[in-house]
Amino acid sequence: MKKQLYYGAAYYPELWDEKTIEEDIRYMKEVGINVVRMGEFAWAKMEPKQDEIDMSFFANIIDKLYENGIETIICTPTPTPPIWMTHGHPERMYVDADGTVMSHGARQHICTNNPFFRERSRIIIEAMSKAVGSHPGVIAWQTDNEFKCHVQECMCATCKELWHEWLREKYGTIENLNKAWGTMIWSEYYHDFQQVPQPYKTPFLHNASLSTAYRMFSREKIAEYNDEQIAAIRKYSDRPITHNTSRGFALDNERLFKNLDFASFDAYPHCDQYNQMILNYDIWRNTKKGKPFWVMETSPSHNGHLHGYQKPHRNGFLTAEVVSAYAMGAQGFSYWLWRQQRTGCELPHSAILSTWGKPTLGFDNVVNAEKARKDIEPIILETKPSQAELAITYSDRAKAFFLTESLEKIDYVQVMEKLHHMVMDMGIHRDLIFEGGDLEGYKLLLTPFMPYVSDEYLNRAKAFVENGGIWIVGPLTGWRTGEHTVHTDAGLGRLEKVAGVETTYIYSMTGTEARGNAFGMSAPLGLLSAVFEPKGAKVMGTVHGGVTPGLAFITEYKIGKGKIVMIGSTPQGEEGKAMMEKIIDHYACEAGISVRVNATQGTIVAPRHGKDKKVWVIVNMDGKGGSVEIPQPAFDILKGQTIQPGILNIGSYEYRVVEF
Amino acid sequence: MKKQLYYGAAYYPELWDEKTIEEDIRYMKEVGINVVRMGEFAWAKMEPKQDEIDMSFFANIIDKLYENGIETIICTPTPTPPIWMTHGHPERMYVDADGTVMSHGARQHICTNNPFFRERSRIIIEAMSKAVGSHPGVIAWQTDNEFKCHVQECMCATCKELWHEWLREKYGTIENLNKAWGTMIWSEYYHDFQQVPQPYKTPFLHNASLSTAYRMFSREKIAEYNDEQIAAIRKYSDRPITHNTSRGFALDNERLFKNLDFASFDAYPHCDQYNQMILNYDIWRNTKKGKPFWVMETSPSHNGHLHGYQKPHRNGFLTAEVVSAYAMGAQGFSYWLWRQQRTGCELPHSAILSTWGKPTLGFDNVVNAEKARKDIEPIILETKPSQAELAITYSDRAKAFFLTESLEKIDYVQVMEKLHHMVMDMGIHRDLIFEGGDLEGYKLLLTPFMPYVSDEYLNRAKAFVENGGIWIVGPLTGWRTGEHTVHTDAGLGRLEKVAGVETTYIYSMTGTEARGNAFGMSAPLGLLSAVFEPKGAKVMGTVHGGVTPGLAFITEYKIGKGKIVMIGSTPQGEEGKAMMEKIIDHYACEAGISVRVNATQGTIVAPRHGKDKKVWVIVNMDGKGGSVEIPQPAFDILKGQTIQPGILNIGSYEYRVVEF
Amino acid sequence: MKKQLYYGAAYYPELWDEKTIEEDIRYMKEVGINVVRMGEFAWAKMEPKQDEIDMSFFANIIDKLYENGIETIICTPTPTPPIWMTHGHPERMYVDADGTVMSHGARQHICTNNPFFRERSRIIIEAMSKAVGSHPGVIAWQTDNEFKCHVQECMCATCKELWHEWLREKYGTIENLNKAWGTMIWSEYYHDFQQVPQPYKTPFLHNASLSTAYRMFSREKIAEYNDEQIAAIRKYSDRPITHNTSRGFALDNERLFKNLDFASFDAYPHCDQYNQMILNYDIWRNTKKGKPFWVMETSPSHNGHLHGYQKPHRNGFLTAEVVSAYAMGAQGFSYWLWRQQRTGCELPHSAILSTWGKPTLGFDNVVNAEKARKDIEPIILETKPSQAELAITYSDRAKAFFLTESLEKIDYVQVMEKLHHMVMDMGIHRDLIFEGGDLEGYKLLLTPFMPYVSDEYLNRAKAFVENGGIWIVGPLTGWRTGEHTVHTDAGLGRLEKVAGVETTYIYSMTGTEARGNAFGMSAPLGLLSAVFEPKGAKVMGTVHGGVTPGLAFITEYKIGKGKIVMIGSTPQGEEGKAMMEKIIDHYACEAGISVRVNATQGTIVAPRHGKDKKVWVIVNMDGKGGSVEIPQPAFDILKGQTIQPGILNIGSYEYRVVEF
Repeated sequence: MKKQLYYGAAYYPELWDEKTIEEDIRYMKEVGINVVRMGEFAWAKMEPKQDEIDMSFFANIIDKLYENGIETIICTPTPTPPIWMTHGHPERMYVDADGTVMSHGARQHICTNNPFFRERSRIIIEAMSKAVGSHPGVIAWQTDNEFKCHVQECMCATCKELWHEWLREKYGTIENLNKAWGTMIWSEYYHDFQQVPQPYKTPFLHNASLSTAYRMFSREKIAEYNDEQIAAIRKYSDRPITHNTSRGFALDNERLFKNLDFASFDAYPHCDQYNQMILNYDIWRNTKKGKPFWVMETSPSHNGHLHGYQKPHRNGFLTAEVVSAYAMGAQGFSYWLWRQQRTGCELPHSAILSTWGKPTLGFDNVVNAEKARKDIEPIILETKPSQAELAITYSDRAKAFFLTESLEKIDYVQVMEKLHHMVMDMGIHRDLIFEGGDLEGYKLLLTPFMPYVSDEYLNRAKAFVENGGIWIVGPLTGWRTGEHTVHTDAGLGRLEKVAGVETTYIYSMTGTEARGNAFGMSAPLGLLSAVFEPKGAKVMGTVHGGVTPGLAFITEYKIGKGKIVMIGSTPQGEEGKAMMEKIIDHYACEAGISVRVNATQGTIVAPRHGKDKKVWVIVNMDGKGGSVEIPQPAFDILKGQTIQPGILNIGSYEYRVVEF
Repeated sequence: MKKQLYYGAAYYPELWDEKTIEEDIRYMKEVGINVVRMGEFAWAKMEPKQDEIDMSFFANIIDKLYENGIETIICTPTPTPPIWMTHGHPERMYVDADGTVMSHGARQHICTNNPFFRERSRIIIEAMSKAVGSHPGVIAWQTDNEFKCHVQECMCATCKELWHEWLREKYGTIENLNKAWGTMIWSEYYHDFQQVPQPYKTPFLHNASLSTAYRMFSREKIAEYNDEQIAAIRKYSDRPITHNTSRGFALDNERLFKNLDFASFDAYPHCDQYNQMILNYDIWRNTKKGKPFWVMETSPSHNGHLHGYQKPHRNGFLTAEVVSAYAMGAQGFSYWLWRQQRTGCELPHSAILSTWGKPTLGFDNVVNAEKARKDIEPIILETKPSQAELAITYSDRAKAFFLTESLEKIDYVQVMEKLHHMVMDMGIHRDLIFEGGDLEGYKLLLTPFMPYVSDEYLNRAKAFVENGGIWIVGPLTGWRTGEHTVHTDAGLGRLEKVAGVETTYIYSMTGTEARGNAFGMSAPLGLLSAVFEPKGAKVMGTVHGGVTPGLAFITEYKIGKGKIVMIGSTPQGEEGKAMMEKIIDHYACEAGISVRVNATQGTIVAPRHGKDKKVWVIVNMDGKGGSVEIPQPAFDILKGQTIQPGILNIGSYEYRVVEF
Repeated sequence: MKKQLYYGAAYYPELWDEKTIEEDIRYMKEVGINVVRMGEFAWAKMEPKQDEIDMSFFANIIDKLYENGIETIICTPTPTPPIWMTHGHPERMYVDADGTVMSHGARQHICTNNPFFRERSRIIIEAMSKAVGSHPGVIAWQTDNEFKCHVQECMCATCKELWHEWLREKYGTIENLNKAWGTMIWSEYYHDFQQVPQPYKTPFLHNASLSTAYRMFSREKIAEYNDEQIAAIRKYSDRPITHNTSRGFALDNERLFKNLDFASFDAYPHCDQYNQMILNYDIWRNTKKGKPFWVMETSPSHNGHLHGYQKPHRNGFLTAEVVSAYAMGAQGFSYWLWRQQRTGCELPHSAILSTWGKPTLGFDNVVNAEKARKDIEPIILETKPSQAELAITYSDRAKAFFLTESLEKIDYVQVMEKLHHMVMDMGIHRDLIFEGGDLEGYKLLLTPFMPYVSDEYLNRAKAFVENGGIWIVGPLTGWRTGEHTVHTDAGLGRLEKVAGVETTYIYSMTGTEARGNAFGMSAPLGLLSAVFEPKGAKVMGTVHGGVTPGLAFITEYKIGKGKIVMIGSTPQGEEGKAMMEKIIDHYACEAGISVRVNATQGTIVAPRHGKDKKVWVIVNMDGKGGSVEIPQPAFDILKGQTIQPGILNIGSYEYRVVEF
């Protein structure tokens, strides 16, 4: 990739005639599109019949685009295997938990673990790589498309065999598995790995250990398949490889991105859900540390399919979205899609051009956002996003645990969005990092909603504390083992000793009249809660009322130069929100967090720095305008004027680049 | 059929002993029943074992009834194939979209496309026709019973083969299908018709073209089956044939009724939903033009099955229902059912006699309605329903499109009911006609909620306009092709040129703050909308606010002696309702619509005419009483008194027949 | 069993190591546990491979417990067949109504009618009985665990065959079945028992007769299986046998308990649903007349599984629950469970010890309740629960009828709970008895919500009336035959003659404006209603408004020394509740009911008597405290002080034992 900001769109030339393609390219240049994403559903075009592979169509399109200054991200077409692979082969298809075998006709209808599919997938990818993998117009690869976007864990016979193999590898002997899962319960007990069922329908619930293991098996397998794609690409191409992932799917993104070169994601929040977009920036910026990410898909106006759609973005929102993306670490921003689909099931989805070749609802917004991109490109290229001082662990393993054990219908994605939104509104710059993320450089670490705390994680977090960090553990963290069982040494296992507490009880405070008092505030408590007696720790919050009054729900404990803070229960409602803000604020201050701004809600600041340069990119995201406090004399780079310390007003969807 | 009004009930003598049947006949005569409907579930009685056909039981009953002055509509028993056809033959059964094979025990459990079933169906019908088809007591035939009332499109192996044949016939080559459906999308592409799946479960949605095609295939097949029944009947009988259809089922009624002799329908609104009954009269009166229709099933009091029922009709409602039916074009009005079921699953359904042989809740109401029937019979037989000046297109194809693409959960039946209710409350007499309905004699044509406008329809509507008609197109009309794809020439295809507009954008206004201003009113806009720039047309309504302010959503365009009015968006809420009324009122006035009355809500007028005669049948439908403005001196035929121009009060459920 | 009160917990030593088991026993003794329940999920422990049966583990545990003063209820392990019975044998598994075959991994996944399962079940039970059935520490047996708690009627091929056999036995000839079920309807007609389907999926509903018959078949089969267990146990053991049943499952408890020795039940209401606990006491006390029952499972604090749980009991509630149980007829009170599960799917369920071996949330409450047990034990052992004068028929057959025909989503369990709650709040002591329950000694009999009144029941009730009892029939009683069909002689069949009424109409009054006037009160009427003309009876309540004004909905009729009261409709809302209370109060007074107290809501009285002794155990169940009127001078046994007549205050969850 060049050192530039990319502005792109998903393009499906296989669906259109030559004349339309020429019209498309003309319009792309007019709009400012400098990259397209192609190929991810085009297997039938590339290999209409088995072994009749012909990449010339795409090679020609890549040529044509390149001649017109438009580069290409080429995608492997594996989400949509052609009819010659699926017709008459139910044994290759995806099977859901009710045993229904999927039909050809949509996407992800095949089992990605099927050996024939894997083989054909390797063959087509190698052929693609050979044909276009070194084309000067090709700047990168995308594997597949949104792994698992419509499906969960496959239950087919192939998966069953692999499941047994995976278990054998993980546990060695069936006795180890029986012990780990406690299968003597309900006489589940197995004599052989081959007896272990996939978690399909049973009169009540499966053993939590089995359910979670099957989820992790499936996540591992799809990542392994992704690795196979990388290997096939690498045979003939050295271009960087990514996958357009999402937080919503049945994936372990930390594992999935292990062998990928850069991060990219798809997200379709509508304009009032801008916080979800920022959350994505905050995660994917940190996935491949130091490397810019891509917004690989988002809508020019609204998403849509035959049975629903969102409201369209308000005019101006796209500019805010694009500027904030680049400012927070994106190198590319790509729309889905260029030209509205003529056929299929996403007819009502917004695009840049309409099916009939005219600018759509979003067209002018896309053009305006492109102007902004050009506007900020020099300063973005000169600087890098600043690391936050606050890290929040975001864990797809935790998400899998909550799928197995939702307790009170807890949705991991939603609770994390809520927490992130709060921190964002507090003006604290933050990084969301995976469980294995490097803690170097942070002052404050938050580990909320993580049922299982691995020894590896605990050791690193402890070291972080010993070196002076503050670690806030909870709420809802540490109450399960890695096998999705209950601890037998202490309610929260080894964590308790590290945190200087003893867990007296673990139970849900929902529906009791328990309230928590802490930091001069009071709030109702709820959700599964651990209440403590201090064993060295200092009590910072106490339960009142309910069934366990007098016990602690917040403690802090000094280790080395730092501190571990336990939050055992979740403050609820408006009072609870205020209390959570107070807790975070208190420890952010104590940790000496300085990358923090005083801005009105809906206006965000992306801190960046370059050589002797400290820059803020300020963007109003909610369209209501707002203001930011400028702490010291600064210079507005785009307007070329100095700014005095004090309140700086920001208009609706306005952006400013301010240098200190 | 005799020139008389028929008053009937569904009768199941196969379920009762001889003594009970005699009691039934005595009661029928007391009540005034002059026709019964029989046979539609009695296959096991007629042919208890394969090829042991014996129609003597029914022949005897027909005799007995005829001797007592009661005529018979004989029904083919095909909705309930006997156990000898279904037991041990899962391959003959109906299969739903999840792959579940139906069990014997209810009705419609067999696939009506199964060749063995078709053959046995032909045999039993021919035998019936031979046995009773010329009996003087038999006045008509009904094919089957409520085709598709519990099922949708069957997914069995027989249907699969027929589907492939049907596609071959429609598209000739698979390449034509691929092109039409754009199957290169998601690599759906087929090499052979045999590869095209039935739309059973897939991880996401099927191609819209495929889904809609399968619906139309299924609708065509059931109509073809109906045609086969007609042919079998015609072998030995010349009596007129109908089918007791409904608007709610997976049917194309326009096609279904092509070869039937007269229209009939089943409907079970409760007394506060009388508008649905009127809507049915307004459709079925126009299905076989010039021929009276039948209300083949409605309840004497309330419908019901094991898991639910409606509230009972208020006393008096039946009279209003019966009088309005005859007045609006019915020749027959038949209850379901005569005697409450002793067994089965409809035990709580109301009837005229109870299982234990006593008058039921509805009995007196049935008797009173019979008095009214006698009262109005002479004038009804002397006159005919007057054609309306306003036609509204009612399309089962449009309904199928909305099933495939519901957008914001749009229910075609409901939106059409709402529109019809509005027009009825405005006092405008109206005909609901199918897509192919004759436009002769109308002044104003409404085409709402019709995604696909065929060339044939467009040409006829254009000619209608050129000859002086006003055609209101929309809302939500014209945005898809016949293949259920997006237009590639213009947002609304060829329609735009005809209407003198260019569609700028198509998108949903729901959730934006768009309002429409038109005819001095303002209302929020919503649903999928087309906004226009005039290309010759005059802008009559403009969008304010939202994301596309300033564009048109209502235009009018003169062609020949008439006008095309485009309504691109749907006004919402109370303000929206007022605006829609204003629009219709405006163009009704402009079109010179005169068949219109000034009546209070809940009181309706059925205009009829005879030789030098103009008659209004006025009925209070809501039980609250009301009034009608009598525009000129008139004569109350039933009371035998003159009426002065002015307000005429109508009591609760009262009816009046007024001659001008 | 010893003459003592048992206090127990469910115990799963097969899940824990030796050291933990020792710790458990130490804690049990500390808490006061004198009995444990063991074995019901331990088949894999007892017989890890087919025919390798070894009971020594449990024999040792029983020894160890016995040495420590703890007795054992030993349970057959049949709810959880081991993997060697299920793996590779789909034909043995439970099949639901959609045809889904269950997987190993939870419980009740096998078909209990499978002959191989039945044989293995017999073998393991005999082996258990031989090994431990005469152990001095074993005081009783429990068969299986909560039959049908996660499943309904199995649809497997084995069940199909048994179903046909069962029908043959019941009907003799297929013609009898055809007649009884009226199968000529919808051409269901069968030529052979083998053709009769199981009620799996069909396009609409199955014949009510078939559905209800299949339910009764299934209930009979599980009871038959229970009988087989009893026989196997009896081979080597004479200890009394029970089953821990529940009102919520697909069972006929009257039939199930026929051959069991004493009653026991599981129930998990939270502390605000204490009325459900009382209702259970009122049923199970009367199941095996004169024999104490057991509360076999209830939670120390709250129930729970991976996807949900209740709120914890308030502190103190356990004491009220335990005291009221013993006072109302329990001999044993046993918690589920002793030590929180480490693995499986019930991880969040409350226990007495935590997984990590510490007292839990409920621990102190369990200890306090044990103190209360000791406190009341002497007086409980000296006295017996007094029989009520009011009996209410509680019928699992009625429940099955409402499952087949729910009308307006009527839930039998809920409507009965509501009625019981009302009677309890009125202070009337009551017995809930099954259909076959002895009527000796009662003054007032209520038969509500019982669609089918058998001749046998009617005869006994009539005799009860003739001997001076008052029988209140309804609401919603008597409208179906035993075959789940409609009566053909009269709306309510033979009942009408007995009650001196003729049913004019049966229909639902819901949604009409009908009101009932009776006993000087007025209330809206609803649900399926029978309205009467008196044929000898006296009208006590009349319908006003709606569609059948003027008819009776309450009548009374003298026979012999007593009276039959018909309630044909259900008074609704607050007014309806007041009217129902008035009706019951009126007839309670008339019947001379004296076992009745004047207590505030939430405080209950359990009347007991011994040799020359009359005792009230008074308990505050809602934690709010309250009072009871003491009618005559009395003596507080526990406090050792006299009480003057008048109002006696009762503190939160306080209990008092008062002797008169």
